[in-house]
Amino acid sequence: MNDLHRVVIVGGGFGGLYAAKALGNARGIAVTLVDRRNFYLFQPLLYQVATAGLSPGDIASPLRGVLRRFKNITVLMAEVTGFDLERQVVRLAGGEIPYDTLIVAAGSRHSYFGNDRWEAVAPGLKTIEDALDIRRRIFLAFEAAEREEDPEARKAWLTFVVVGGGPTGVELAGALGEIAGQTLRGNFRRIDPSQAVVMLLEGADRVLPPYPAGLSHKAQAALERLGVTVRTGVQVTEIDAERVSVRLEGRVEEIRARTVLWAAGVQASPLARMLGEAAGAEVDRAGRVKVTPSLALPGKAEVLVIGDMAATHDRDGRPLPGVAPVAMQQGRYVARSIIDRLRGRETGPFHYQDKGSMATIGPAAAVAQIGALRFNGYLAWLAWLFVHLLYIAEFDNRLLILIQWAWNYFTRNRGARLITGSVGTRPVSPSRS
Amino acid sequence: MNDLHRVVIVGGGFGGLYAAKALGNARGIAVTLVDRRNFYLFQPLLYQVATAGLSPGDIASPLRGVLRRFKNITVLMAEVTGFDLERQVVRLAGGEIPYDTLIVAAGSRHSYFGNDRWEAVAPGLKTIEDALDIRRRIFLAFEAAEREEDPEARKAWLTFVVVGGGPTGVELAGALGEIAGQTLRGNFRRIDPSQAVVMLLEGADRVLPPYPAGLSHKAQAALERLGVTVRTGVQVTEIDAERVSVRLEGRVEEIRARTVLWAAGVQASPLARMLGEAAGAEVDRAGRVKVTPSLALPGKAEVLVIGDMAATHDRDGRPLPGVAPVAMQQGRYVARSIIDRLRGRETGPFHYQDKGSMATIGPAAAVAQIGALRFNGYLAWLAWLFVHLLYIAEFDNRLLILIQWAWNYFTRNRGARLITGSVGTRPVSPSRS
Repeated sequence: MNDLHRVVIVGGGFGGLYAAKALGNARGIAVTLVDRRNFYLFQPLLYQVATAGLSPGDIASPLRGVLRRFKNITVLMAEVTGFDLERQVVRLAGGEIPYDTLIVAAGSRHSYFGNDRWEAVAPGLKTIEDALDIRRRIFLAFEAAEREEDPEARKAWLTFVVVGGGPTGVELAGALGEIAGQTLRGNFRRIDPSQAVVMLLEGADRVLPPYPAGLSHKAQAALERLGVTVRTGVQVTEIDAERVSVRLEGRVEEIRARTVLWAAGVQASPLARMLGEAAGAEVDRAGRVKVTPSLALPGKAEVLVIGDMAATHDRDGRPLPGVAPVAMQQGRYVARSIIDRLRGRETGPFHYQDKGSMATIGPAAAVAQIGALRFNGYLAWLAWLFVHLLYIAEFDNRLLILIQWAWNYFTRNRGARLITGSVGTRPVSPSRS
Repeated sequence: MNDLHRVVIVGGGFGGLYAAKALGNARGIAVTLVDRRNFYLFQPLLYQVATAGLSPGDIASPLRGVLRRFKNITVLMAEVTGFDLERQVVRLAGGEIPYDTLIVAAGSRHSYFGNDRWEAVAPGLKTIEDALDIRRRIFLAFEAAEREEDPEARKAWLTFVVVGGGPTGVELAGALGEIAGQTLRGNFRRIDPSQAVVMLLEGADRVLPPYPAGLSHKAQAALERLGVTVRTGVQVTEIDAERVSVRLEGRVEEIRARTVLWAAGVQASPLARMLGEAAGAEVDRAGRVKVTPSLALPGKAEVLVIGDMAATHDRDGRPLPGVAPVAMQQGRYVARSIIDRLRGRETGPFHYQDKGSMATIGPAAAVAQIGALRFNGYLAWLAWLFVHLLYIAEFDNRLLILIQWAWNYFTRNRGARLITGSVGTRPVSPSRS
């Protein structure tokens, strides 16, 4: 047993899981995958849980189950507290694990750019718990509006602001537009949910800034068809429980809104900074650690950093985005490089194969860019659906998701709109006596 | 509008929902359904959520969606704090609603028979939150066992005790037996989940005491085939975080177990006692209020109490059990009696139509009693499956549930075994360095 090469993987997201699978049953290698959660989360569909289209169990799969058939992989549910790169151990809350090669793939959290107080009033979307919190806030807001007598206060309950016009912001805003305009039709007696205001705020001059301008405009048009008000070139200056303050072309404006969702930025896991400090490596503004072309810490070839935690570039020097395909390809690459090294072979530097990107806006509406191809509408939506079902293949639940999507598509129903997590409700203020 | 007869229904479970539907679109009647949750919960399948076979969204449905088509029904998400039977108003946290007829159907919670301190260590199963808490405890226990070095402590993590051998206890114990013996096979590297001890404790001399003795014995045999240790005639005297103390034929014994689930008793909602006190009506040991043969409070014909909150009897004077069919029939009965009264017609007393009862134990194992018919095994399981799919008809998700059951049946997989609700984990104690 002692001559086994010990690989420790920190994080069971796209990067860590694809690395683990590529090392599965590799001879001479013993893998320990450490994650503080016991499941792998298919994050691209997390917004569907936040907007009641899918249930948590549909987009998460137990890591032990996914990796069961690889007898050389041990899954450890534990919290990583730090690293000792000299002694080559990962520190855990209450223990440590030695490694010969370390793969760190702990991902990212949302970032409020120094305004951490906004987190309490404008939740972001990274975990199952975040998604259930957002779902709860959305549907409680309609409940509160139904009970509210004061027209101004009612309007604030019926105003939903999404901050950030990237893919997550666009998907959330589109789903909110669909919920207000279609899903909740006829559900209330005193309010008309279709009167709700759904606003998407983006700092750049168009939504989906990394996409070609034409697709951005198509996406905005699709959002507007769902009733979403898109405002670009808008800087958020303050958020509290009752309002969002924005600056637009020098003017300051207040939007009264009781529900604000944050989709404006992410920050690498704090483990990235720890690694950077331990190895004397640079950390960029988003908290990502700069790595070598082989995805190793500079001067530490046995420490590999992948996914959202690593600052990496394509051949033209443009930074790679924090998306699932990058993490998956990096996971497979580092696995191969470990196997190569053990076999005495060289591995060339990592190159990202950009297979395109796509964002969905609503029923039968999406935008996609695949190489030189750009398309939108129904076809892009079908492509989006196909790709996501393909990659969720780890899951028993592909069929379930397909059925729920088909059902939601034809009925505009979202059966998972449960308000859970707390038995109490907000105080009631009816004057029905 | 003023000549409408105002019916207020408190509680959106089986009783309240069936009453509301039977009053749906009835002329001259305006219904307000008050519930503190925004969804209807199909409680007979709640144990499937607790044991990771189904997701919360599969067995819950938004009340507003279910009742949307009845324009005379208003759903109000609010907490009821009491009643003023003289002024005919329901008190809410922050308001009140007047009624002409009141239907109270607020159900029951589990009861620890005066040992409320047990609740923290031996959770019961009544809400979605309860089910997710139990799911979390079950799967965290296996994680903790995998990390535990000490054989005695490890054994305690791998011991699961279910207190109470009624239908819920039998279902939970059977599912636990299946999880330990089949679902988790090959998932761990240091423990063998099939070595887990699942123990079902029942105070009476057999499980499922209300069933015929033959079916009780069949159920026990089916549990034992799943690896469950059934112990009858056992009195629980103490529960703490590490052990259950029991008395068996005068002897006292300690069972070291880190996971204890409570399925031993229920208590009517505290609203039953409030009603009893306000009307001078008797309340029984289980906190249920005694009602007239028309299900009204004595002396208050306009206040109807149904479901788990009402102490009612069959023609032979035997108390009716706290099960869904009783609540559903009582809900329909009170709705008809209200319509009859408005039309100047008399309604006879309520009679329960016992269509039988059934409990499921595990894959392809169940017991059923339908009139004089008693059966068990595969046939009973199919009947159980059919009846539950039939009555979950409120839901879009019948097809989803069927697929998940079929999948779980053939693979013994339970894909919803997610540990959620808290990002942290228990401390790790490996000595892997």
